[in-house]
Amino acid sequence: MSKLSINRETRLCMSLAGRPGNFGTRFHNHLYEALGLNYIYKAFTTGDLPAAIGGIRALGVRGCAISMPFKEACIPLIDELDPSAAAIGSVNTIVNDDGYLRGYNTDYIAIRTLLDRHAVPKDTDFVLRGSGGMAKAVATAFRDAGYASGAILARNPQAGSALAESCGYEWLSEMSGWPSMVVNVTPIGMAGGAEAEDLAFAPEVVADTKIVFDVVALPPETPLIRKARELDKFVITGAEVIALQALEQFVLYTGVRPSEEQVTAAARFAQG
Amino acid sequence: MSKLSINRETRLCMSLAGRPGNFGTRFHNHLYEALGLNYIYKAFTTGDLPAAIGGIRALGVRGCAISMPFKEACIPLIDELDPSAAAIGSVNTIVNDDGYLRGYNTDYIAIRTLLDRHAVPKDTDFVLRGSGGMAKAVATAFRDAGYASGAILARNPQAGSALAESCGYEWLSEMSGWPSMVVNVTPIGMAGGAEAEDLAFAPEVVADTKIVFDVVALPPETPLIRKARELDKFVITGAEVIALQALEQFVLYTGVRPSEEQVTAAARFAQG
Repeated sequence: MSKLSINRETRLCMSLAGRPGNFGTRFHNHLYEALGLNYIYKAFTTGDLPAAIGGIRALGVRGCAISMPFKEACIPLIDELDPSAAAIGSVNTIVNDDGYLRGYNTDYIAIRTLLDRHAVPKDTDFVLRGSGGMAKAVATAFRDAGYASGAILARNPQAGSALAESCGYEWLSEMSGWPSMVVNVTPIGMAGGAEAEDLAFAPEVVADTKIVFDVVALPPETPLIRKARELDKFVITGAEVIALQALEQFVLYTGVRPSEEQVTAAARFAQG
Repeated sequence: MSKLSINRETRLCMSLAGRPGNFGTRFHNHLYEALGLNYIYKAFTTGDLPAAIGGIRALGVRGCAISMPFKEACIPLIDELDPSAAAIGSVNTIVNDDGYLRGYNTDYIAIRTLLDRHAVPKDTDFVLRGSGGMAKAVATAFRDAGYASGAILARNPQAGSALAESCGYEWLSEMSGWPSMVVNVTPIGMAGGAEAEDLAFAPEVVADTKIVFDVVALPPETPLIRKARELDKFVITGAEVIALQALEQFVLYTGVRPSEEQVTAAARFAQG
């Protein structure tokens, strides 16, 4: 199926981000092709969020991924929050049913699914580093999944202690202790970032832990994940998170759940 | 180029119509493919024109074709009218330059180009049948191109006489005389319409005239055009108008002027 197959029945899905990437566009379009669905996907940015959301509604755009810096700002502009978004006050997905806009957070859904899929024991004690929007999604997913023994490691005392408190976790301004799981939800290790070569946790902490969970998706193999694999740790990667959250968006938009092979192929294409 | 080539640089062009068709979508996407341009085109409808236009602006949609019933209603929502649209108070094309929306009427442009290309003598006396929005575009193009000896044939006395007066033409409520050119700008002969099999001008009028111009584009060969060809008249067809006006939109959106062969191929694909 080429562009030549686009017709008046074709549905548009899209993303809104301050700095649009290519992952979602490639992931969704790959699955549309693989499954023969009459959809197209395209990334947008905007300087006028209310008008952009109004346009989604008025044009019948089927779904929209919401990235930084719009995840909270879009909330007053839509009609309803799914519990996944209400839990953290952050929307990363809008689904448009005939002009009625419902906000979801598929990052939250993806984290819960991954903890479940990898059967991480509920009594695992963990340190989660980060205090931004994604850290809130991850920490809340941990709490709601029943992980009670956690600490939030964040230099920013306000954001860090607020997040810790909202989830019933301890707040740490510096690393201490030897947790069974470490979770990175900072940009440390992210390709193109200032700390692309750095580890979010010291090597001796990684050496002592059992599970290393890095939410950074690009590169698929971060320095932290590489170190953890060297040390034979159990790893959960940001590549899994991004593919799973995109898959949940795909299912919300189309009502179709692709096979695992199709998702793997789409995620590989999208990362490439 | 497939859907898989869509990335964050891809530009969207679109249409807004009460009842979206496929011609524009197929025409533009065919040329994008043929020329390797990183654009996609998709048709939309809307129940909220201000929000739809606001969305075009906020999302940086590059261009938008405007069809019935939005051609006049969109005018207060955009920033500037090109002379082609100002001349008739009707917009069929919006071009978005970084949020600044300029309205054009490429139907008007196409009619002027066709009169010129076919070297229709300026002193040709003609009867133009119709008084709707497209009739206004055509009659005004005739006037501005210097055709002074015209009459507007329209049953509706208000619309007919207003259009005639605005162009300095005579108004006829019924056909009279034996003009050198007849121009149909009504839905008579349009596929799927109530008068799909009818002729906008009586056979004896067609037999006596020199030039038959039918603005109806679907079917490409209307009953009127068929009759005119049988009688060896010089014909100008709606298929020429629709392809040329779409071409002018294409040039406005992309800045690229395709070859005649490429336009012919795209128009054939779009009609198919």
